[in-house]
Amino acid sequence: MKPSIVFITSFKLTKMKIGISGLGLIGGSIALQLTKANPECTIMGYDTSKQHQKKACEAGLVDQLLNHKDELLEADLIILAMPVNAILKMLPYYLDRISNQVITDTGSLKHELCEAVANHPRRKNYVAGHPMAGTEHSGPDAAKSDLYRDRYWILSEVDKSGESALEGMIKIISLLKAHILYIDPVKHDEQMAYLSHLSHLSSFALATTINKAEKNGNGHISHLAGGGLYSTIRLANSSSSMWTPIFNMNSNNMINCIDNFIDNLNTLKDQIKNRDHDALTQQIKKANKIYGKIYNEKNQK
Amino acid sequence: MKPSIVFITSFKLTKMKIGISGLGLIGGSIALQLTKANPECTIMGYDTSKQHQKKACEAGLVDQLLNHKDELLEADLIILAMPVNAILKMLPYYLDRISNQVITDTGSLKHELCEAVANHPRRKNYVAGHPMAGTEHSGPDAAKSDLYRDRYWILSEVDKSGESALEGMIKIISLLKAHILYIDPVKHDEQMAYLSHLSHLSSFALATTINKAEKNGNGHISHLAGGGLYSTIRLANSSSSMWTPIFNMNSNNMINCIDNFIDNLNTLKDQIKNRDHDALTQQIKKANKIYGKIYNEKNQK
Repeated sequence: MKPSIVFITSFKLTKMKIGISGLGLIGGSIALQLTKANPECTIMGYDTSKQHQKKACEAGLVDQLLNHKDELLEADLIILAMPVNAILKMLPYYLDRISNQVITDTGSLKHELCEAVANHPRRKNYVAGHPMAGTEHSGPDAAKSDLYRDRYWILSEVDKSGESALEGMIKIISLLKAHILYIDPVKHDEQMAYLSHLSHLSSFALATTINKAEKNGNGHISHLAGGGLYSTIRLANSSSSMWTPIFNMNSNNMINCIDNFIDNLNTLKDQIKNRDHDALTQQIKKANKIYGKIYNEKNQK
Repeated sequence: MKPSIVFITSFKLTKMKIGISGLGLIGGSIALQLTKANPECTIMGYDTSKQHQKKACEAGLVDQLLNHKDELLEADLIILAMPVNAILKMLPYYLDRISNQVITDTGSLKHELCEAVANHPRRKNYVAGHPMAGTEHSGPDAAKSDLYRDRYWILSEVDKSGESALEGMIKIISLLKAHILYIDPVKHDEQMAYLSHLSHLSSFALATTINKAEKNGNGHISHLAGGGLYSTIRLANSSSSMWTPIFNMNSNNMINCIDNFIDNLNTLKDQIKNRDHDALTQQIKKANKIYGKIYNEKNQK
């Protein structure tokens, strides 16, 4: 079970064995791009779902499909790309069992994961990561090699990672064509609540609202949906296996964030109710400016 | 001021004079496609904004730019493509002054407009319309000839329109490549609250929420925004001159709709708060199904 390269001291990309746990959109896209950028590496893949295993093979995501989670310990680099609750469980499991390998993850939350292994004797073998990329689709079929191109790959609490482990991960992220950002775990989770998690929650709630309107005597109205609605509820296709754990593990931030969102919805509602045209107009103009800022930054990336 | 074609009895498309009031995205796109589909018609355009007038000329939207609103009365068909509050004001104005021409509109609400002219002696010259198309951009620059292709063009209260006026509008809509749907004005406004207006309001509120998070000590976070957030707040770029009147004129439906949306947000919030993983998962799976239905119908159009 000894790794072929002593990772923590030398991070050689060629002929490296990369073990990925979780062969969905996130893990599968890592596999595709690493194979493309570095054909000599070996991608070893593991997934608890039989269906994912089958689809990952059909999609050619892995060189070697693993039958047992412990076989991942043969890899030089272990990437945990499962839902965040499974990462929370498996990160200490693998840290307990590795020798010199590096472990990283792709979890959308960082605080609880970093806390869980804060005092682990092999804490420096772990690099806490979060690639800010995804689509509303999931599973091995949804994987694509350019998913991370020009996107941010957040690394968190890097002062606790070993120098060579971190250096290695920086090389891997550069093969994935992403840009690195360093963010504190607590700040990260708070910011993600606003920038990503709330958008998903809002889409789920919006879809449910439309469905209830149909049931309340509006018949079948969703065929009338235009591009605007489609854009606003696109994220409502995101999988519960990924999002239930995210919402739960980020519950305090989510609750604050939802409360703020509801406050803003109520402000708009009151302006409509009170026929306060000027205030409503100002509110919309302010939203236009915020959109403009986000749009410009998106296109400058 | 006598129209060149007696419209109400014969609707000849070629050489027709089409007068459009409001040369933004909606009116401008009608102008472009009608010129393309029927080069012999004359597009006469009017806009109260000097800037729109200038841009409409630069973009070649009109054959003839009008200096005064009454010059629209020279047209055989008058299309009111202004914000819905301006349509409410100008629809009776033109109905009072026309002889045999047809008037139609593109307003996102139908009930108050239909009510306003319900007893007008020339009610049958009016065809109440609402093309369900748009983008988050506005103004003459945003106009494009294929805006209406394969989109729904709603006609409302058609039993009150004259037969030949309606027949003519059906021809015009077919030139614009849209599909016609007939919906009762009251139902229309209620359904639009859910299918379109709520998405816009939610985007405005979401943009504001992110901005407040930045101000509350999260520094400048919007540069981290990914495709998901961008999709969810795309409509926050929509113009206040269009949306303030829509929200105000559809206030009762909007208030119900926002209340339902907030209820659904609170349900999700409570599930997160109470760590009710199963209920949260079921809620997300339900939203997935609703998304799937809307997505499939969108792609079947």
